Amino acid sequence: MSKPKLSVVKIGGAVLEDPEMRTSFLEDFEQLKGDKILVHGGGRIATEVGNKLGIQAQMVEGRRVTDDATIDVVTMVYAGLVNKQLVADLQRRGLNAIGLTGADGNIIRSVKRPVTKGIDYGWVGDPAEVNSPFIQNLVSSGALPVIAPITHDKEGHLLNTNADTMAATLALALAGHYEVALVVTFELEGIMRDIQDQNSVIPVLQEGEYQALKSAGAIHSGMVPKLDNGFNALKGGVSSLRICKFDQIHTTNGSFLQI
Amino acid sequence: MSKPKLSVVKIGGAVLEDPEMRTSFLEDFEQLKGDKILVHGGGRIATEVGNKLGIQAQMVEGRRVTDDATIDVVTMVYAGLVNKQLVADLQRRGLNAIGLTGADGNIIRSVKRPVTKGIDYGWVGDPAEVNSPFIQNLVSSGALPVIAPITHDKEGHLLNTNADTMAATLALALAGHYEVALVVTFELEGIMRDIQDQNSVIPVLQEGEYQALKSAGAIHSGMVPKLDNGFNALKGGVSSLRICKFDQIHTTNGSFLQI
Repeated sequence: MSKPKLSVVKIGGAVLEDPEMRTSFLEDFEQLKGDKILVHGGGRIATEVGNKLGIQAQMVEGRRVTDDATIDVVTMVYAGLVNKQLVADLQRRGLNAIGLTGADGNIIRSVKRPVTKGIDYGWVGDPAEVNSPFIQNLVSSGALPVIAPITHDKEGHLLNTNADTMAATLALALAGHYEVALVVTFELEGIMRDIQDQNSVIPVLQEGEYQALKSAGAIHSGMVPKLDNGFNALKGGVSSLRICKFDQIHTTNGSFLQI
Repeated sequence: MSKPKLSVVKIGGAVLEDPEMRTSFLEDFEQLKGDKILVHGGGRIATEVGNKLGIQAQMVEGRRVTDDATIDVVTMVYAGLVNKQLVADLQRRGLNAIGLTGADGNIIRSVKRPVTKGIDYGWVGDPAEVNSPFIQNLVSSGALPVIAPITHDKEGHLLNTNADTMAATLALALAGHYEVALVVTFELEGIMRDIQDQNSVIPVLQEGEYQALKSAGAIHSGMVPKLDNGFNALKGGVSSLRICKFDQIHTTNGSFLQI
């Protein structure tokens, strides 16, 4: 018996903070057929709100150090502002969106990241367990989960969690029940051999080529955890993984990863 | 065939912003048997966060005027910070909390309040329609909805909505399916004949006596909409309505309204 299909789409904060890009994304996402889940970021908006509140973002290796004041800011921005604006907009479009964090329905329990190499990231969590039946029930009842990058430890603490990691974790956990297509969107056309050349998009990126590009420094910083997550998801049973521009979700443009 | 029982509990922002009262409330709420829904406020916390962001609360007749900046603040505070902290705490206690606004699953659609007597409340909504089947499905799957006082108009706008009104609206809408006990909690022991005398709690407040106390000015300001909502809920089929202290939910203390 073939599994039902499910798309898991990730959208980042840079697209969401730009009203025009945000609208293009939503129009495109609306056109995507079948059951779907949206996972969003919101880091740039959190940095802005934090600045207004006098809380400076502290980044270590591209990741936000999350002290007591910062977990409140990211909870407000990700789970409140960004999540509910997306839900209201999707509801307007006739999609039955329901906004969730990992704490809601205990859909993603995380483990607080231990101090590593002297770096204490604070209230940052790495996903440990997914409540797949709860999400399956929602999806099969016609709901569209819209998931903010906040989880919990089931001990009463909220944890700041990387949105790419959450999307990959959800895709992996749901791959037992669904044929999952994971679509990671951003501002570019796809993975490019040369970041200066929009025509250098790699339609299919083999893992071997990825390792070579990474070693050569052509793929670096934020793209590395995104792609590592992606290849792991494929190895864990996710059916397809595509990285594409935020307005190309319903097409097959961009870069497919292949193991 | 008798209906299943459901408790709808309302808790306000004043209790939530005090860590000790908040903990007492949650311990008490945890003890309440059977299916339950929590509706919360958060106004005082929103005022604090707004002040830090340089957005002053404008109140007209006890209600918040909600301009563009203010709807963002209340969405962040109610749907983000307050809602998710409650969810994480209830999850820690083993209750399967799921945080929602009226926009999520379209559970409460509101109508933006029209300008009345020259007062424009801005992005304020009055509930018009409840998606009861969605809530029933969640409750019957063992989830505990935790509802923030934000709704939407199904046209893409989030709306600030009075939490007492939301609790009464939900209780009313669910009364067709459940035997609903609505429990409105606050800092006092109940409705008192004399606000200075803690021993003057009225165990059963008849509507006639309420009208007399209101006319005499003994019951006034914030209590009036709370009680008007309450009597309307009873008339609409809600089985019982009790107003009690935040740590007396699982008892029968406080004041029952009676029509």
